[in-house]
Amino acid sequence: MIIDVHGHYTTAPKALEAWRNRQIAGITDPAARPQVAELVITDDELRESIEANQLKQMKARGSDLTIFSPRASFMAHHIGDFQVSSTWAAICNELCARVSQLYPDHFIPAAMLPQSPGVDPKTCLPEIDRCVREYGAVAVNLNPDPSGGHWTSPPLYDRHWYPIYERLVEHDVPAMIHVSTSCNPSFHTTGAHYINADTTAFMQLIQGDLFKDFPTLRFVIPHGGGAAPYHWGRYRGLAQELKKPPLTQHLLDNVFFDTCVYHQPGIDLLATVIPAANILFASEMIGAVRGVDPETGHNYDDTKRYIEASTGLTPAQKQQVYEGNARRVYPRLAAALEKRGK
Amino acid sequence: MIIDVHGHYTTAPKALEAWRNRQIAGITDPAARPQVAELVITDDELRESIEANQLKQMKARGSDLTIFSPRASFMAHHIGDFQVSSTWAAICNELCARVSQLYPDHFIPAAMLPQSPGVDPKTCLPEIDRCVREYGAVAVNLNPDPSGGHWTSPPLYDRHWYPIYERLVEHDVPAMIHVSTSCNPSFHTTGAHYINADTTAFMQLIQGDLFKDFPTLRFVIPHGGGAAPYHWGRYRGLAQELKKPPLTQHLLDNVFFDTCVYHQPGIDLLATVIPAANILFASEMIGAVRGVDPETGHNYDDTKRYIEASTGLTPAQKQQVYEGNARRVYPRLAAALEKRGK
Repeated sequence: MIIDVHGHYTTAPKALEAWRNRQIAGITDPAARPQVAELVITDDELRESIEANQLKQMKARGSDLTIFSPRASFMAHHIGDFQVSSTWAAICNELCARVSQLYPDHFIPAAMLPQSPGVDPKTCLPEIDRCVREYGAVAVNLNPDPSGGHWTSPPLYDRHWYPIYERLVEHDVPAMIHVSTSCNPSFHTTGAHYINADTTAFMQLIQGDLFKDFPTLRFVIPHGGGAAPYHWGRYRGLAQELKKPPLTQHLLDNVFFDTCVYHQPGIDLLATVIPAANILFASEMIGAVRGVDPETGHNYDDTKRYIEASTGLTPAQKQQVYEGNARRVYPRLAAALEKRGK
Repeated sequence: MIIDVHGHYTTAPKALEAWRNRQIAGITDPAARPQVAELVITDDELRESIEANQLKQMKARGSDLTIFSPRASFMAHHIGDFQVSSTWAAICNELCARVSQLYPDHFIPAAMLPQSPGVDPKTCLPEIDRCVREYGAVAVNLNPDPSGGHWTSPPLYDRHWYPIYERLVEHDVPAMIHVSTSCNPSFHTTGAHYINADTTAFMQLIQGDLFKDFPTLRFVIPHGGGAAPYHWGRYRGLAQELKKPPLTQHLLDNVFFDTCVYHQPGIDLLATVIPAANILFASEMIGAVRGVDPETGHNYDDTKRYIEASTGLTPAQKQQVYEGNARRVYPRLAAALEKRGK
């Protein structure tokens, strides 16, 4: 089985975006504020949006199951207050849950959180509980910068975030560290902010001792870990200067990298530098980079081709990357699969 | 000849830091403000700080000449106003010029700029002129984020920066895009802010069309280009989505990457992905990562070892990386060397 741990619902029916635009207008004009019930998306519309897109590509490329969460760039936690984020998160999470119910063999949900800049992360706990218990969410996406590119929250090792970590540990679900759209003109959303956030999060984890307090907490750093694997020597050296244990001991029981790296040499580096046990197959399809690479004739984000071609991974390690690691890092995914005899 | 294009004066005599601390105290307490003349550093003190450190390592490692600029993390453009930055830049640039005069075969200066957040970059022009004309500076370090981690300046393609570009073109000197210390607790200075800045700058250059306006302007992106080479497929794909020409055409006549990547697989990736003509040898020694890699027994920042061991570069390409490219990218360096018959 090939499990893609990183897919977003980037193809949701247009009604969702239209409702969101009305919600945003309602922040300054309460009369314009829409009711949640005004958003009606039928199962057929969900099917159409999935079958013509993600599911079609999954079948074409040969992946089986996607951990499916709301569109990352649309989380936009910087918009409005907690109430706005809370309503929006509930809607988006429900849609991903419905898709997963329609295609239980192909999608399983992960939740976005109703984060809001300057608001206590404790406020996210009810949505975590709801998504895990009612929807069977196997992970959450945690935004280390709900300000959208201004980086006003404390680092991830700060106690500020502990209420969320406690709840994740309780439910035994990992967090993918994933920012949303950038409202800072310096940072292109998918070309700078996403990759910077991955790098920043990884360095924050080096600086702290978070996993001493939470030995079973697990983080997935997406987009191949940002710059971390390419600069692995720098990070090993900085950990050393900060008097931390070697990275393998300090972080690699708890930190995992996905394979959203869109060319062969990048995947080869990842496979060379990072232990296979810490690499999770992912494509973020349909996502930031949708084109066809003229150098290969295949989609940039068809990452399975790079794994297949990678000489740095044995067949057994590829199996780990495709499936084994995901079952270990996402125990609720493993349990859901076992329940279905898979 | 082996030219290291990226060295900072990180080992300046302690009197420099003491003077800077008094200058900073003087921002809020004008009575405490020191005179420039109160900073006295003798040639012997300069020699001691260089011979026991950079020069010793250069000889041990086998590099000949370093393009030498003020300590990057100490530029701290976010401190004080333009006047503070201006005085500080003048002092630091003079010290690098003096080191270069003491060791003309081993050091040649690059200038820091007296940037200050929110201040018109035009104010940097006199210092550029002075350093090029009086000190023979062959490059400048341009900070894309003088706020120190808050990223309040317009992107590099914005006309905001054009006065500096015009002057660089006039003098035919390249800019290394290099941030300074981070005062944002989210960003570790050398582990996140530096690398993020490289990635951010590269993506900004993809977004813009800067080199249409300045076809002879040249930028060096340090630290191996941040995350760019590792995510080269992503950047090729994003350029394609933005309807830009292929990266080789769009940027690679004007953008160069240094080799400050502190492990073998990182350098191997760089050499695989980036044309040899765009790679410049550098170590940033003595800099962010000063330790010995227990996996190799050598300093992390002894980057020459990785180039030597790289199978992705032919001997002729290594010669380009070590010397030929630097002469091309830094024409004033080439001229200075030729003048000395080198």
